Amino acid sequence: LTSKLPQVGTSIFTVMSQLAQQYGAINLSQGFPDFNCPPELTELVSDYLRQGFNQYAPMAGVLKLREQISSKTEKLYGFAPDPDTEITITSGATEALYAALAAILRPGDEVIILEPAYDSYVPAILLNGGQPVFVPLQVPSFAINWQLVKEAITSRTRAILLNSPHNPSGAVLSASDLLNLAELVTDTNILIISDEVYEHMVFDGQPHLSLLTKPELAARSFVISSFGKTYHATGWKVAYCVAPAALTIEFRKVHQYLTFSTVTPIQYAIADYLDNQEHYLTLPAFYQAKRDLFHQLLQSSRFTLTPSAGTYFQLVSYENITQERDQAFARRLTTEVGVAAIPISVFYHQQTDHGLLRFCFAKNEDTLRAAAEKLNRL
Amino acid sequence: LTSKLPQVGTSIFTVMSQLAQQYGAINLSQGFPDFNCPPELTELVSDYLRQGFNQYAPMAGVLKLREQISSKTEKLYGFAPDPDTEITITSGATEALYAALAAILRPGDEVIILEPAYDSYVPAILLNGGQPVFVPLQVPSFAINWQLVKEAITSRTRAILLNSPHNPSGAVLSASDLLNLAELVTDTNILIISDEVYEHMVFDGQPHLSLLTKPELAARSFVISSFGKTYHATGWKVAYCVAPAALTIEFRKVHQYLTFSTVTPIQYAIADYLDNQEHYLTLPAFYQAKRDLFHQLLQSSRFTLTPSAGTYFQLVSYENITQERDQAFARRLTTEVGVAAIPISVFYHQQTDHGLLRFCFAKNEDTLRAAAEKLNRL
Ligand SMILES: CSCCC(=O)C(=O)O
Ligand SMILES: CSCCC(=O)C(=O)O
Repeated sequence: LTSKLPQVGTSIFTVMSQLAQQYGAINLSQGFPDFNCPPELTELVSDYLRQGFNQYAPMAGVLKLREQISSKTEKLYGFAPDPDTEITITSGATEALYAALAAILRPGDEVIILEPAYDSYVPAILLNGGQPVFVPLQVPSFAINWQLVKEAITSRTRAILLNSPHNPSGAVLSASDLLNLAELVTDTNILIISDEVYEHMVFDGQPHLSLLTKPELAARSFVISSFGKTYHATGWKVAYCVAPAALTIEFRKVHQYLTFSTVTPIQYAIADYLDNQEHYLTLPAFYQAKRDLFHQLLQSSRFTLTPSAGTYFQLVSYENITQERDQAFARRLTTEVGVAAIPISVFYHQQTDHGLLRFCFAKNEDTLRAAAEKLNRL
Repeated sequence: LTSKLPQVGTSIFTVMSQLAQQYGAINLSQGFPDFNCPPELTELVSDYLRQGFNQYAPMAGVLKLREQISSKTEKLYGFAPDPDTEITITSGATEALYAALAAILRPGDEVIILEPAYDSYVPAILLNGGQPVFVPLQVPSFAINWQLVKEAITSRTRAILLNSPHNPSGAVLSASDLLNLAELVTDTNILIISDEVYEHMVFDGQPHLSLLTKPELAARSFVISSFGKTYHATGWKVAYCVAPAALTIEFRKVHQYLTFSTVTPIQYAIADYLDNQEHYLTLPAFYQAKRDLFHQLLQSSRFTLTPSAGTYFQLVSYENITQERDQAFARRLTTEVGVAAIPISVFYHQQTDHGLLRFCFAKNEDTLRAAAEKLNRL
């Protein structure tokens, strides 16, 4: 069997998490909290399990959950997508991203992606016959150079894939980014896939600028978010995609044959829990406090940090410590220092190395303190 | 946006379940139980939820669950697949099927499928650039005509997709089927995808003849099963794929970017629950009793039934009642008689009509009695 993805090996997240476990290192690599989701939410899931809400959910997702997403979207972004025709629940944001690409790509179609880019984007494009076209984000700001994006557009460009808040950098789209994007795609057939799974983790009083805030962008976008991130339950794999009816029709045709539906009792539980809007509104402050603590703890270290604007990730530069390549250093940090991180070069198709590591600060204070203590020894 | 799946509409399962709901009909259409999964199992899930087993599962699935699958497979089929390299947990059997096809198909590759065929097979083949090649099962036995399969093989044949116990007919593979298959694929590169999600529902004292029982077949097969079917929890979407290491490597590359991982607390709970082998060993008798009850209840009806050999489905012929096409009759049965069923023509690419409906008997006795009462009026 000749591989369709010869370059793909074990993902960096699996590699680093396993290495962390093997060496007993504090795992700040793979992005997930080391605290539990709200107990009210797990109790709701248990209730639904017990009551027998265990058979297939509707293909598009539990209706009440889609209605809640619509209300939340209206409240936050001023636009209420139609639960019947514009919202689909998926088995994780990974599935949503794959389904969007599978729905729109034909052999040879190009998709513009901004690097560093989350590791599933390129394989998902390739498996669907598409061709990734890479545009680097500016370093160290990780801002988008729209001139470069414009130059990357060809007659084969089918879509632009965006991610804000951005993994791994924590950068967020600005109002002028949205304007630039809107201008760029006006009068084209280019679609947009917008990975906004960290939508509720934007700091320093900034709002999250979803593509859904701009009708002309919403009209051509698949906007993806994830309850796993929002409710500290990355293992639940419940996410969703908002897209205009014409796009959602095609998206659902794929979703129907990719997974058909998503875990039922958890959908019902989240639908109920969304009555409580408090929770996600407290996330910016909750995660900002962790970000700031992590900064403060590393103040006296030899790492250089520019505060992350969003996500639960923090990039750090280690140029004052060593000239090692980031993958080598990340490995050594795990095995010798006892803290696991993600090297940023893995997010570049050419493994471009900027001497940066990514730490996940979605951790209890004790964990962050213990990690900082080790990192400060360097 | 030009559709990549222009023929795909709302699936028959969604259509009939919605129609049943709208008309207050008893829903024997979409295949799912109207009883709950074992309470010990939901309690285990609740325990894991509460204890915080809510972050990403390993990409290949929770190790203990893979180990349990290996033991179960050894016990039942005399072959213990390696949990590390030959077993992958997926978000439903639908995902497993899609991932297997995505891993192996290149544009123009042909996949032989036997009709009537489950509705996801053709779209999953098409989305992955493949070409379905249809071989009809014999009617009314739904046995495989191996001569026809042989004639369907070309130099482009990449895989044969089998399904036993067979949805919708309930037919099961015989020992001679396995011999025929083995002979057919010997000295070829043809792979096999074997949908065995109803493996624990084979009746009349027959064993389930998994492809895993024959090493020469196991060596070229993706064998797919589903805990949703086994534990009366179709909405959990936890399934798995057993395949030789070389195939599993490619399968996982796709799975990694399709969904990455599957709902964590449910995986842990099923892993524990599998210590109790009693449950799945009682399924044949449990479902056979329902099949037999359904038969007995319809004895005096004008439907003709040949007992289903496996699955939780029963085909019935209605030729003594009407000459209507099956889709029209299924609709009328739902709206006028009050019992929803699946018309078999939807499982044929040319909508071949044999005057057959499929009823799901995975229902409480009361439900089956109430349905039969209505059906007997015809
Ligand atoms: C799906 S495992 C990776 C989790 C994640 O989003 C990250 O660490 O970037
Ligand atoms: C995924 S909904 C269809 C359920 C099923 O397997 C069937 O009814 O055949």
